[in-house]
Amino acid sequence: MHIIDQPRTGRAGTSTQGITLTPTPGDQDLFVAWRLGVWPNFYPDTKFPQGAGNPSLSPTDVPPALNQFFRQMTVNTGPSDRTVITAGVAALFAEIGPAVLLTHSASGILGWVTATLTPNVRAIYAYEPTDYAFPSNALPAPIGTGAAQITPKPLSPSDFQKLTKIPIRIQYSDHIPSTSSPYVRVQTWINRVAMGKLMVAAINKKGGNASILHLPDLGIHGNTHFSFADVNNVQIADILSRWLDQHGLDRY
Amino acid sequence: MHIIDQPRTGRAGTSTQGITLTPTPGDQDLFVAWRLGVWPNFYPDTKFPQGAGNPSLSPTDVPPALNQFFRQMTVNTGPSDRTVITAGVAALFAEIGPAVLLTHSASGILGWVTATLTPNVRAIYAYEPTDYAFPSNALPAPIGTGAAQITPKPLSPSDFQKLTKIPIRIQYSDHIPSTSSPYVRVQTWINRVAMGKLMVAAINKKGGNASILHLPDLGIHGNTHFSFADVNNVQIADILSRWLDQHGLDRY
Repeated sequence: MHIIDQPRTGRAGTSTQGITLTPTPGDQDLFVAWRLGVWPNFYPDTKFPQGAGNPSLSPTDVPPALNQFFRQMTVNTGPSDRTVITAGVAALFAEIGPAVLLTHSASGILGWVTATLTPNVRAIYAYEPTDYAFPSNALPAPIGTGAAQITPKPLSPSDFQKLTKIPIRIQYSDHIPSTSSPYVRVQTWINRVAMGKLMVAAINKKGGNASILHLPDLGIHGNTHFSFADVNNVQIADILSRWLDQHGLDRY
Repeated sequence: MHIIDQPRTGRAGTSTQGITLTPTPGDQDLFVAWRLGVWPNFYPDTKFPQGAGNPSLSPTDVPPALNQFFRQMTVNTGPSDRTVITAGVAALFAEIGPAVLLTHSASGILGWVTATLTPNVRAIYAYEPTDYAFPSNALPAPIGTGAAQITPKPLSPSDFQKLTKIPIRIQYSDHIPSTSSPYVRVQTWINRVAMGKLMVAAINKKGGNASILHLPDLGIHGNTHFSFADVNNVQIADILSRWLDQHGLDRY
């Protein structure tokens, strides 16, 4: 298993292009966007690590798990460039051979694009992707308005066709209301789910094998945007294992 | 085992202080400084991963191991601040309890300082530290001249005393000539070894337990600044294991 640090972030931070980093507080915003709760309160059924309690507004009183969570974020050390990242990941797949690509959140779109660059991406399991790909000649209308609006990302029709050749699963956690939310960062997820359904339909219409899983539909409640790191992460991993097994992907 | 990403680098890149990152080519310089060889030629007996061959001056022709090696470097995402890092590492030791601290290269000085901040650092194994600590009231003269000069780093006498209470090992790899080098980046190592001997003597004079190991003295040749990542890394790990065993440190 390879855990990817994308070019220009984390342990792959060296870049040939400069950047000025300006610290920008975002913890409270992301607490809502990543569906831990509505700051400063966790959702009562949250699967965020136990003992986290309610964060105080005083940074020194933030409980340990949440403290660590905020600290595990890192920054981009060069200009964000989708082409650089997807070329890098495709190069990795060229080296390691056929494998399953797991994506999360903003790396969702990178996964869709990477699968168009190399046949070694044999499946994609996308946890809560933020963006969704469509043939450039069949783009749906944007969904939502303002800051919560989700726009479809175009691929050439021939590239989109490649997404119909591999199993694709999109998985969402809990606390995405079915209709609307007063919180723009949650409304965004409602719109993403709607756009995800359109993408899955577009793939399957062309003979593909894509599906969506909502954890609450399995009776699993309280998971955040990071289900694989929540307290029930073994249960979450088992879901992936079963899907890999069903598709004959759990072998070397 | 914990592998530390220091605050403001790697996966701990979020900082409350901004910085402007300006890419600066340094591969050829570091090839010499880290004693892989004299660019573009490896030392003939190098323990750098096999198949690395001689790097071409064309980046696209750099052999895979060297290519990966250069890419594993990352950048500082905030101002370098020894206080922030050592406070962070001391906080980690407060959390995990008594443990052995391994340092490498520029983190050497961070290890000496961290051991003054927490009694949980029960030993230090320092791979090729770049800087050396002394009591502020007994500083030796700088060693060497110009860019190769090594200056002693002062600790308060009471802090230095703490370094006499724990086992300390400093280990150097190969290709540090005994007298002088025409390459300033290699001469620096000659000066560091000389300063290291003074530090070890200063610790032991006060009743401490510090020692220096040169790998060639064990008949192990060709190791780089990164012996633990060279092709004989198991052999290198065994040396650490034996030292831990000798000091009763290889247990929970």
